Amino acid sequence: MFKLLQRAMPLLADLARHRGRQIPQDLLAGTITAVLLIPQALAYAVLAGLPPQMGLYASVLPPVVYALLGSSRTLAVGPVAVAAVMVASALNAYAANDPAQYITGALILSALTGLILLVLAALRMGWLTHFISHPVLSGFTTGAAIFIIGTQIGPLLGISVSRGGHFPDLLEELLANLSQFNVATALIGVGSLAGLLLARRPLILLLQRYGMAASTAAITSKTAPLVLVAIATLICQAGSLSQSQGVATIGIVPQGLPGIDFAFLKQPGWLALLPAAGMIALIGYVESISVARSLAFRRHERIDPDRELMALGSSNVAGALVGAMPVAGGFARSMVNFDAGARTQAAAIVTAAWVALAAMFFTGLLAELPKAVLAAIIIVAVFQLINFASIKHSWTYDLGDGIAQMATIIGVLLLGIEGGLLLGALLGVGFFMYRTSRPHIAVVGRIKGSEHFRNIDRHQVETWPELLLMRVDENIYFANSPRVEDNLMHQVVCREGLHHVILILSGVAYIDASGLEMLEAFERSLGDKGISLHLAEVKGPVMDRLAGTRLVHNLGSERIHLSADAAVQKLGPHA
Amino acid sequence: MFKLLQRAMPLLADLARHRGRQIPQDLLAGTITAVLLIPQALAYAVLAGLPPQMGLYASVLPPVVYALLGSSRTLAVGPVAVAAVMVASALNAYAANDPAQYITGALILSALTGLILLVLAALRMGWLTHFISHPVLSGFTTGAAIFIIGTQIGPLLGISVSRGGHFPDLLEELLANLSQFNVATALIGVGSLAGLLLARRPLILLLQRYGMAASTAAITSKTAPLVLVAIATLICQAGSLSQSQGVATIGIVPQGLPGIDFAFLKQPGWLALLPAAGMIALIGYVESISVARSLAFRRHERIDPDRELMALGSSNVAGALVGAMPVAGGFARSMVNFDAGARTQAAAIVTAAWVALAAMFFTGLLAELPKAVLAAIIIVAVFQLINFASIKHSWTYDLGDGIAQMATIIGVLLLGIEGGLLLGALLGVGFFMYRTSRPHIAVVGRIKGSEHFRNIDRHQVETWPELLLMRVDENIYFANSPRVEDNLMHQVVCREGLHHVILILSGVAYIDASGLEMLEAFERSLGDKGISLHLAEVKGPVMDRLAGTRLVHNLGSERIHLSADAAVQKLGPHA
Repeated sequence: MFKLLQRAMPLLADLARHRGRQIPQDLLAGTITAVLLIPQALAYAVLAGLPPQMGLYASVLPPVVYALLGSSRTLAVGPVAVAAVMVASALNAYAANDPAQYITGALILSALTGLILLVLAALRMGWLTHFISHPVLSGFTTGAAIFIIGTQIGPLLGISVSRGGHFPDLLEELLANLSQFNVATALIGVGSLAGLLLARRPLILLLQRYGMAASTAAITSKTAPLVLVAIATLICQAGSLSQSQGVATIGIVPQGLPGIDFAFLKQPGWLALLPAAGMIALIGYVESISVARSLAFRRHERIDPDRELMALGSSNVAGALVGAMPVAGGFARSMVNFDAGARTQAAAIVTAAWVALAAMFFTGLLAELPKAVLAAIIIVAVFQLINFASIKHSWTYDLGDGIAQMATIIGVLLLGIEGGLLLGALLGVGFFMYRTSRPHIAVVGRIKGSEHFRNIDRHQVETWPELLLMRVDENIYFANSPRVEDNLMHQVVCREGLHHVILILSGVAYIDASGLEMLEAFERSLGDKGISLHLAEVKGPVMDRLAGTRLVHNLGSERIHLSADAAVQKLGPHA
Repeated sequence: MFKLLQRAMPLLADLARHRGRQIPQDLLAGTITAVLLIPQALAYAVLAGLPPQMGLYASVLPPVVYALLGSSRTLAVGPVAVAAVMVASALNAYAANDPAQYITGALILSALTGLILLVLAALRMGWLTHFISHPVLSGFTTGAAIFIIGTQIGPLLGISVSRGGHFPDLLEELLANLSQFNVATALIGVGSLAGLLLARRPLILLLQRYGMAASTAAITSKTAPLVLVAIATLICQAGSLSQSQGVATIGIVPQGLPGIDFAFLKQPGWLALLPAAGMIALIGYVESISVARSLAFRRHERIDPDRELMALGSSNVAGALVGAMPVAGGFARSMVNFDAGARTQAAAIVTAAWVALAAMFFTGLLAELPKAVLAAIIIVAVFQLINFASIKHSWTYDLGDGIAQMATIIGVLLLGIEGGLLLGALLGVGFFMYRTSRPHIAVVGRIKGSEHFRNIDRHQVETWPELLLMRVDENIYFANSPRVEDNLMHQVVCREGLHHVILILSGVAYIDASGLEMLEAFERSLGDKGISLHLAEVKGPVMDRLAGTRLVHNLGSERIHLSADAAVQKLGPHA
């Protein structure tokens, strides 16, 4: 029974294995993560256009559910910036001017995101997420981060900007209203930004110079956002800045944790929000699993993709029931958790407990927290997601990947979050199809004294006038079979005195019906010219499929060879 | 100068080469094709919902333009059934209740179809058309033929049906109005159908029995539609059947050929018709080039795909200016032309001259031609396009191809012409992506006494406990790199005492940025376990791309081997 429970909940197995020896580390790591998480949770809710408490709610039950079910030991689940901006983008279309419907919409998004992940888990269709390439994902994150920073400049400087719209509209509006910035807000915002930046490397170096251990210094640096929130709130309250200077604050945040509420289930709009939920699910899952994978890899642990789908799905569904915005595994937060020494998901439960305490007893103090501080926290957090080095790398290694990545960034900024992602994914598939539609076909010869056949253009090889050996370096399928046929024909036409054409299929894992038709036509056409077609190095799965076709029937076993060398031995001049 | 003209117009080169010796054959073939074409031209215009003369106009200037520019010697260009039904489908949405706008729309479609083909020719993007696989194309043709037959049952029996709508609506309407069929019309229609069917194989066999040569008998059989048109018109006129019995006739067809008219250029709707024109261009081109290819193949001639785009594009644009519906290369008609012995496109010019004569002097006689006769001609013509054998073949050979083909047929019938084609094309790409996303990875060993490495599950091979040789049978790219990594890792974890992992990349033509990242991570991960990664049989183009990456830098030249055998020689126990 306990075994069964352990299999259903990896955390139990972990705890049994550690026998409590990991508790001190998990306590410490969970606490440090909470210090980072609380201000981020408020900030990301505001980024999504939601009341700040919805970020806190998303940081209590959802990570606990993930902790019980997930396969990663260190992934920190909660509100994340990219999902938050996707929520905002979806809800601006759905309920721009109705705050109550906007909140309902966020709960529907959480529920749908969770359900989509659960369906993918049940159908074992996590592979669908593989269709977003690394460069496109990286481009998407960079584009989203730039977009998010754009949305936060208004709150940072106290310039009022309308929510929604694409990046160019946003910039235009910002520029038009630039002169109307609020001095006190701008001072707080820019000051917070400077403070947060100084609290990173400069503070760590400073603390280390005064003799603090590197790890302690790094942890101290992580407290900066929370300290900033406390100081800024106190200053703003002391000076009544919201009234005297018009500094925008987050307002009263209700204290306590909500109970389970099914009311949103009856609201309309589920179908309309489905595509956006699909994208949030996709991106949330892909981001989570890459963070989980890279952390697991560092400790030689394993991640189970289907279990991750199930755990993330469940935590989103649970979140929807307690008023939480959609959640995913956060990159920075998981790194902090890992670096602080978390061993098991017990650390995540510690974090959640701290957030719950904060929600129950301290949110009442936050009414005077300036929104500019949250804007500064968001900007600093997402700035790390911008990765231009990756663009350069993709561009150098593979033009198609580079173009897809660049197009995704530009697409996110010009077409919006969903449009950009879709564009990138389609371009990725398009470039792959394009590439496979123009296969490399090498005329090969034998390296003297060996059994190896190599491209005649790249190596010193033996050839024979009556034999033409060609290696097709790609699956033969509908998108490339006309081109393959043209290429093969061209090589045949160029040669005199040819008796045998030997196709080396070592690079062919698959021949579809169009490819088969083409090969059958090619065989007939060669036959008309008195040339015989041979196949060599046909892979097992390809041969299985070809068995019983007219092609194999026509060739017979004597024209299908185990290797190019065997074919030459049999057909060559010395044979 | 003449050389230049010859290169621009292959027909001139052909004529120069033949020095007039082919004239008798071309005259005969052109005349026979005209006999088949004239009734089809009327019928396909009516099928498209257009006045019959627009089919004749499409059979004069467009084939002449193609004759001058095209690379096929025997392709017969003109109105075709599938394009006609696509025109009807596009125009029912565009101008269902406005006959004048309907005609304008058809001219816009001709012009757009032509322009799209010309743009593809200019950009050398004919390969775009390769993305429709043979099974999908065959499924599309079958579905369109079934759909066309459905649309013709009404006219055949004199049941009035509304134009437009999908196949189920059409069947429902036919069934609902079945009792209201027109007796005289049904007699003419069913009689024509029987006559046309009897004029095929039975007539040919009969004529042969009476001593006629097989080829003459076949040609005589082709005159059946024209003879039928003449007889039916005479009977209908003699009996005043259109007035006394309510038999629908095509009505007065204006005599003469139209001049060039640019008026349609100023009409609106170009953007709205663009997607439909794109599909007509795609299907028209694909059908034309496959017919042209298969005929050229039989006489060892060559087809130039880019030139075909240009020629078909020009002939459609020219057609739009003289009031013609969109054209393409017709299958049956080209076969007749070829079988009748056409040597050059001069035959097509002969055909066009006959059609022009008919349009100028005989269309006045056609007012009393019953529409039921045209319906019978259409049904018999498109019935040959239905190909269920191909479905069975695709299904047996490749489940993905079979499903895509079936879905295309059903899609055409349930979603409509465009929807079905789009569904089929997307499924084709989807199945290919799915397949390449789950690559075959074989653990291999050496066949004793040889240098060949084969799957340990399929062959008796040598293996070594400290070496793991794996062959990846697919390009490594974003959609499969997580799965490849999982598979490789799984094999490594299963083995004890492993020192070297050798990846054989003979089946890899391409590694994208995501794949490269995965391999770099795999190399690091193996390194952590004290295992070293090696690559073998890396193809030239892959190696070119990998040069300069961190992976190749880490491996160094001593861990990249020319062949699996060379790697084993170096690393094996006897090394």
